Amino acid sequence: MHSLDPAAHLTRVRATTPLVHNITNHVAMNPMANVLLALGASPAMVHAREEAAEFAALAGALTLNIGTLSPHWLDAMDDAARAATAAGTPWVLDPVAVGATRFRREAGDRLLALAPSVIRGNASEILALAERTGGGRGVDSTAAPEGAEAAAASLARRSGAVVAVTGERDLVTDGTRLARVAGGHPLMPRVTALGCSLSGVVGAFLAGAEDPFAATVAALASYAVAGEQAGEAARGPGSFAVAFLDALHALDATTLTEHARLELTDAP
Amino acid sequence: MHSLDPAAHLTRVRATTPLVHNITNHVAMNPMANVLLALGASPAMVHAREEAAEFAALAGALTLNIGTLSPHWLDAMDDAARAATAAGTPWVLDPVAVGATRFRREAGDRLLALAPSVIRGNASEILALAERTGGGRGVDSTAAPEGAEAAAASLARRSGAVVAVTGERDLVTDGTRLARVAGGHPLMPRVTALGCSLSGVVGAFLAGAEDPFAATVAALASYAVAGEQAGEAARGPGSFAVAFLDALHALDATTLTEHARLELTDAP
Amino acid sequence: MHSLDPAAHLTRVRATTPLVHNITNHVAMNPMANVLLALGASPAMVHAREEAAEFAALAGALTLNIGTLSPHWLDAMDDAARAATAAGTPWVLDPVAVGATRFRREAGDRLLALAPSVIRGNASEILALAERTGGGRGVDSTAAPEGAEAAAASLARRSGAVVAVTGERDLVTDGTRLARVAGGHPLMPRVTALGCSLSGVVGAFLAGAEDPFAATVAALASYAVAGEQAGEAARGPGSFAVAFLDALHALDATTLTEHARLELTDAP
Repeated sequence: MHSLDPAAHLTRVRATTPLVHNITNHVAMNPMANVLLALGASPAMVHAREEAAEFAALAGALTLNIGTLSPHWLDAMDDAARAATAAGTPWVLDPVAVGATRFRREAGDRLLALAPSVIRGNASEILALAERTGGGRGVDSTAAPEGAEAAAASLARRSGAVVAVTGERDLVTDGTRLARVAGGHPLMPRVTALGCSLSGVVGAFLAGAEDPFAATVAALASYAVAGEQAGEAARGPGSFAVAFLDALHALDATTLTEHARLELTDAP
Repeated sequence: MHSLDPAAHLTRVRATTPLVHNITNHVAMNPMANVLLALGASPAMVHAREEAAEFAALAGALTLNIGTLSPHWLDAMDDAARAATAAGTPWVLDPVAVGATRFRREAGDRLLALAPSVIRGNASEILALAERTGGGRGVDSTAAPEGAEAAAASLARRSGAVVAVTGERDLVTDGTRLARVAGGHPLMPRVTALGCSLSGVVGAFLAGAEDPFAATVAALASYAVAGEQAGEAARGPGSFAVAFLDALHALDATTLTEHARLELTDAP
Repeated sequence: MHSLDPAAHLTRVRATTPLVHNITNHVAMNPMANVLLALGASPAMVHAREEAAEFAALAGALTLNIGTLSPHWLDAMDDAARAATAAGTPWVLDPVAVGATRFRREAGDRLLALAPSVIRGNASEILALAERTGGGRGVDSTAAPEGAEAAAASLARRSGAVVAVTGERDLVTDGTRLARVAGGHPLMPRVTALGCSLSGVVGAFLAGAEDPFAATVAALASYAVAGEQAGEAARGPGSFAVAFLDALHALDATTLTEHARLELTDAP
């Protein structure tokens, strides 16, 4: 059994300042960079096909997000994912609204076939992906946490990726193990791109990690604790966003250990 | 006479969480998403031609902003506007700096011809558009509020759109009625993209509204009241932007009714 | 000897509200616009090749930043730089991560050949550019301030540009004079795009300035003083970013004169 000690992972991120290469959507670029800087990582946003693969090979982790997609960017994502895989660099797929249009469904299929290390999405996105790989139960099961857990575990087994489903309560599974992460704050979905930015944080925790499952759990736990602390000072979504960056920057291993609320079990 | 009860419109937005599809400029994407989330709407930024029309047909409203234009995006805007019209979905045109270059003038003409439900701009932008449709009095009249009112009413009659001119004092006209909306704060023009974000808010109020004129007035009144309240806590444009999101999130129907300063009259 | 009175330059910026045209990266667009508005300038982000040159000729200054480059944008930057030069408009090159990939090295060469008025980067970027023009000492000298000073002075003489190297301590040189600017705050590198935004501020100070060297020093001094003042109120990078905009907006000539820490010497 691998340890789920999230503090050890946070300490590694802080000690190594991992370079995280992100091809993400236009809304998320700025907050994601600020979240990664507040965490102690080094973000880079590089999307031109002329340099995406070259840059991906230099980074400690890569993240791909289809939020504001275009065909050129999708080609660059494909190049970057292949370069990351060739270099042994972990990469994260964030399948934003993957079920909404044909273009997104095809983009999701194409990137999923390139074997991401981690897939992070909300329940609808993970269910949409799981269904396309033959393992989901349909979008109707969104409301039922057990439905999301079974779909996520199935997607993990079929894709070989760690799958993280984030929402009011987060879950992470590699198809064998399943962790539930509590915490966060009701204002988090009222601040744009906090979910997208979390995919960057997962990237930072993956860089240099031996166990992608434990690293992903540590990323989500750090986010959840920072979110709880930010909520104490917030008067609305504007002040929450500010307090969240301050809290993530101030988060230390001791606080994380004390406040992380994790449950580890077998995957369904 | 239609009611101008803005609180009823705010209550509808809060109850329905309208999906607002925006093709907007790179500067505005992030604050516009945050403004819409703070208001209680659901923003989506989708600009690829491969999916813009498909997505527009799913949304409760569409907004198009030419602030950081490119030919590809303009084509996607054209597709999205046609799809919205075909689906009976209201859409907002934000003609940023439409008079500044030939490319923008042509973009403005092209989108105006697609029959927006609402056009929202500052006085110079509305005057530039009005002049191109033969109804303006030239940019020299920018300084005179009466000039803007006459140009806006003329543009409304020729285009069939509700026209909103925002600035120190806002006005809305459908060519027959004219409303003046007071409020806001002098720091608002010192925060980038608050005007662009207001076009998103107009979109949120249009979704499901019977009277686009009254819905637009309600959007502007909500913005003006939130701006006044944010100004009380602000020490400069940085803290104003934060307080504005908090105020928009906290705004309720009672506060809006108490603080909205509206005047309704006949259009010139 | 030209005066280094930074307050006179700040007073000119505030009195003239210069229009600064920026083709910058996706991460920086929003904070750069907010920084320029807080300063009292008028930012415009216009990147389409169909209008970049036309717009550059209207502006008081132009800034080009290769942070999230693509071939189309590079062509538009080329057009805009030529139009600015033809119109006698000063322009700033921000060579983000210029050494990281082949695409960036070639972009840096291409833009450098168009004779920027000012080049602003961190020590690694300036050293990478200096080396390509035959005047650097290699990236290994990054750690040694004297290495950066000699490389910057050499790059200034070869390119004809004022060169600004920003970091813990800033330096500005035109190849003959060299100024060191102290100040700022350790949280500044933890907020994304503050360096990129500074290039916009340099643009605002260049508009209408007789001496680009003194104008650049004034821009850096204003930034450093606002950074120091923001640091007093900050609890982390989130609240720092907010306080920085407030401090830049509140900065006046008297405060700048009192708090600016400048040293003027001969270039090495």
